[in-house]
Amino acid sequence: MASDLKNLPDVQAEAGFLGLPIHRVGVTDVRYPINFDSSGSAQSTTGLWEMAVSLAGDKRGTHMSRFLEILSEFKGTQTIDTLREMCADIRDRLNAEDAFLTVEFPWFIEKVAPVSNRPGKLDFDVKISVATGGSMATEVSIKVPATSLCPCSKQISKYGAHNQRCELTLSVRFVDGATISLEELFLIAESSASAPLFSVIKRDDEKHVTEQAYENPKFCEDTIRDLAESLNSDERINSYKCSVENFESIHSHNAFAEIASGWKHF
Amino acid sequence: MASDLKNLPDVQAEAGFLGLPIHRVGVTDVRYPINFDSSGSAQSTTGLWEMAVSLAGDKRGTHMSRFLEILSEFKGTQTIDTLREMCADIRDRLNAEDAFLTVEFPWFIEKVAPVSNRPGKLDFDVKISVATGGSMATEVSIKVPATSLCPCSKQISKYGAHNQRCELTLSVRFVDGATISLEELFLIAESSASAPLFSVIKRDDEKHVTEQAYENPKFCEDTIRDLAESLNSDERINSYKCSVENFESIHSHNAFAEIASGWKHF
Amino acid sequence: MASDLKNLPDVQAEAGFLGLPIHRVGVTDVRYPINFDSSGSAQSTTGLWEMAVSLAGDKRGTHMSRFLEILSEFKGTQTIDTLREMCADIRDRLNAEDAFLTVEFPWFIEKVAPVSNRPGKLDFDVKISVATGGSMATEVSIKVPATSLCPCSKQISKYGAHNQRCELTLSVRFVDGATISLEELFLIAESSASAPLFSVIKRDDEKHVTEQAYENPKFCEDTIRDLAESLNSDERINSYKCSVENFESIHSHNAFAEIASGWKHF
Amino acid sequence: MASDLKNLPDVQAEAGFLGLPIHRVGVTDVRYPINFDSSGSAQSTTGLWEMAVSLAGDKRGTHMSRFLEILSEFKGTQTIDTLREMCADIRDRLNAEDAFLTVEFPWFIEKVAPVSNRPGKLDFDVKISVATGGSMATEVSIKVPATSLCPCSKQISKYGAHNQRCELTLSVRFVDGATISLEELFLIAESSASAPLFSVIKRDDEKHVTEQAYENPKFCEDTIRDLAESLNSDERINSYKCSVENFESIHSHNAFAEIASGWKHF
Repeated sequence: MASDLKNLPDVQAEAGFLGLPIHRVGVTDVRYPINFDSSGSAQSTTGLWEMAVSLAGDKRGTHMSRFLEILSEFKGTQTIDTLREMCADIRDRLNAEDAFLTVEFPWFIEKVAPVSNRPGKLDFDVKISVATGGSMATEVSIKVPATSLCPCSKQISKYGAHNQRCELTLSVRFVDGATISLEELFLIAESSASAPLFSVIKRDDEKHVTEQAYENPKFCEDTIRDLAESLNSDERINSYKCSVENFESIHSHNAFAEIASGWKHF
Repeated sequence: MASDLKNLPDVQAEAGFLGLPIHRVGVTDVRYPINFDSSGSAQSTTGLWEMAVSLAGDKRGTHMSRFLEILSEFKGTQTIDTLREMCADIRDRLNAEDAFLTVEFPWFIEKVAPVSNRPGKLDFDVKISVATGGSMATEVSIKVPATSLCPCSKQISKYGAHNQRCELTLSVRFVDGATISLEELFLIAESSASAPLFSVIKRDDEKHVTEQAYENPKFCEDTIRDLAESLNSDERINSYKCSVENFESIHSHNAFAEIASGWKHF
Repeated sequence: MASDLKNLPDVQAEAGFLGLPIHRVGVTDVRYPINFDSSGSAQSTTGLWEMAVSLAGDKRGTHMSRFLEILSEFKGTQTIDTLREMCADIRDRLNAEDAFLTVEFPWFIEKVAPVSNRPGKLDFDVKISVATGGSMATEVSIKVPATSLCPCSKQISKYGAHNQRCELTLSVRFVDGATISLEELFLIAESSASAPLFSVIKRDDEKHVTEQAYENPKFCEDTIRDLAESLNSDERINSYKCSVENFESIHSHNAFAEIASGWKHF
Repeated sequence: MASDLKNLPDVQAEAGFLGLPIHRVGVTDVRYPINFDSSGSAQSTTGLWEMAVSLAGDKRGTHMSRFLEILSEFKGTQTIDTLREMCADIRDRLNAEDAFLTVEFPWFIEKVAPVSNRPGKLDFDVKISVATGGSMATEVSIKVPATSLCPCSKQISKYGAHNQRCELTLSVRFVDGATISLEELFLIAESSASAPLFSVIKRDDEKHVTEQAYENPKFCEDTIRDLAESLNSDERINSYKCSVENFESIHSHNAFAEIASGWKHF
């Protein structure tokens, strides 16, 4: 085997090569299990991974298989810190200037129905991106489902008010040394909407959330401003981008609003 | 070119071959334009096509390129009849026992807002499937978006009632010689929900639809029963399958209900 | 709370109601964790669930929240047997004639690269459906990725042969008392293609799989016939439906083929 | 009706309001027909639209219905210029500082098979984004499918070489006054891959493209460098971002590479 490796030409390592530098090259759409710990509570699920490096102009190709090996070698529970270590490991083992790692997975928050106290889990999407070159940058993104109810509809109608599911997307970068758990980020986003969602709801819970939404009508614009203000006043957050999308019950299209502060893409 | 064709071995036409009969073999995920006419009004859009034939046990392979040629040769406006002809053409030109053709595309219905009378278009998904062997079978499927409002929520709450977008899916086979336009099928489905959608809505329209939904609360179960009853009493319809899915505004999951009558898949 | 429940009208339990029977009504698009055991090896991931019951004509609505409660109450590792028990539990607790349960999740099979022996995991999609009425029916479906190489392209070209990723979909119902693990079903499907996939590949593995695919050219038609023959001769299998789809490297559309034996949808 | 409009409170136009400025607020996921002209050849299809404006801190809400009205009022054929005018119209009629418009649709390029000369269409995705504030910015993005063949696999294997479908994504901003047709952008991207795709292929075409790919092996890295060099030397282009993704036939994940030059998101 070792002799085969020596004899097979290494086409990626062509001598004397010169081409444009490549900003990111790697593997994407990689499914692999992840056991992730968000401040003490770990969940196991399947992650969707992307790993890449920058490539200098004098290298024809990167070492694609090493990404998968590094991923396969990891044992145990991941945290934001271990993901940063994996990213630094990628940079070293692929001899690159910069490395990039992203993992997306569903996360569950324990919920208790507001009147019946019945327990249940609510799911939301999480995406963690890490980049390392000279320094390390980390982004945590979540998508939070909630209820939105229209103020205009409420105000002008004899009874009722159109409401619908909405989705808040929140991407943050933390101040150095700071962090916010997934659950806390979830609650910051959720509290900007008209009412929260629950998976297990009995009739007295349904009455409660229906009235809560009706008492708390919000346009997209109100929701996104409330969310942005929470983020502006949170000292752990360095920069953010947030948006809300309403799956309007009276239209087949959606309404949305977006605010960003100091946001720079990788 | 002709000489090349003769000299290149025809691997699909292997002599003396014997294997299992294949029920369907062909091409899928084919995007190709379509100008479709539903009872006098034509629209141009992009269709997603699938074309297949059955294959006898003594043939190693079908003639994949002929599907694309038949599609490319068609000029002009399609109707359900021309799609049936195309399907029969596929059967003939591929020397098959059975042929199958499906095309999916978005369709637009002209709507007028209920109070302001503003015009607008509402989009819905259409899928037409044709099969021909001994005889011809045709299925028309549509997905219709509408508003649904919860009776329980309305009944038990001081004010308000959770509502959301819902989607009705309706697949029908017509009695021989009968047909129903896409627009009419759309209206049959839409009228089973709590309220219709509009793309262009001004404030007096918003008041109207909010109140209309509130006055017309329906569970999934109510909606699907109303739709099934309309279909049962329509003499043009031979068999059907219908379902409704509510994108519940108080949950992150959906509720659904389904009724079928005499439905047999191709 | 108990008094609230008594006082809030139970709209779903309307007395004297009469409407069409509903074939399936329930919840769908429910994300919830699952720890699944396929013959001794358990994996944790996130499942996409659907749970439903039939509804008699004299009942206006079902008990939607009970589905989520039953799901939330389950603790521990799921197997096909526990999923059947959950389905029976749904039927009982919702007082229904029939109950239906489906869960979809990604599964990982341990792979070892053919020459370097490097370990890695390969992911594939699993869907398990259970229905219970008078009797129990179970379907296991998997989607297996593999490599396919074109015989015609190989035969007629001076060198090379177009190849691509393909996806085999296999749905089976077992003979009473029999079962086949997910891993074994995976290997049955995979062995019908031109060559298997690996996530971790070094250069000598790459040489091996490239040559293996070239030595094993198969049309869609060949692959599906080989798969169907394996299934026909497997005494544990009562009925099946299988298909293969090639993401053709020379086209922007896909080729596919399908064989079914004794297959009846739920 | 007019009196209703006067009497119904205008909740969005709340006096004395003060909140955070909103960067973008509007409607998304809007399906609406489009007849688009790319340098003289028009095609009709269905577009997916997004329209938004910025909102000052002293305005509680924007005028959501006006977006749909502006879209509905447009008659005739769209070009990049008419889309810019529509965007400017949105800014004026919603009294906004900035307006944003995006439309995505499939486009077809006429292709002729390389040996048989058979005609056929190849589909690719197009997205046009326009932003106007002080000045106008326009981005044209396309996704081009092609064939990629691996140099390493070719070099080290006795015969064959793994190949697969790949997808090149190209986003460009033009120098003021310059433009490039969709068809030309398509060909710039396509020529960077190992071989082009065709929808209609006969056997002598299949031989040709198989050999062409084999004679033109390219890593992701090679392809993206070739594409970036074409763009660097094109004086009509001001800035760009391009990437290629290979749906690897020997893996279940994908490989990708990306280069950007002067690229700033809206």
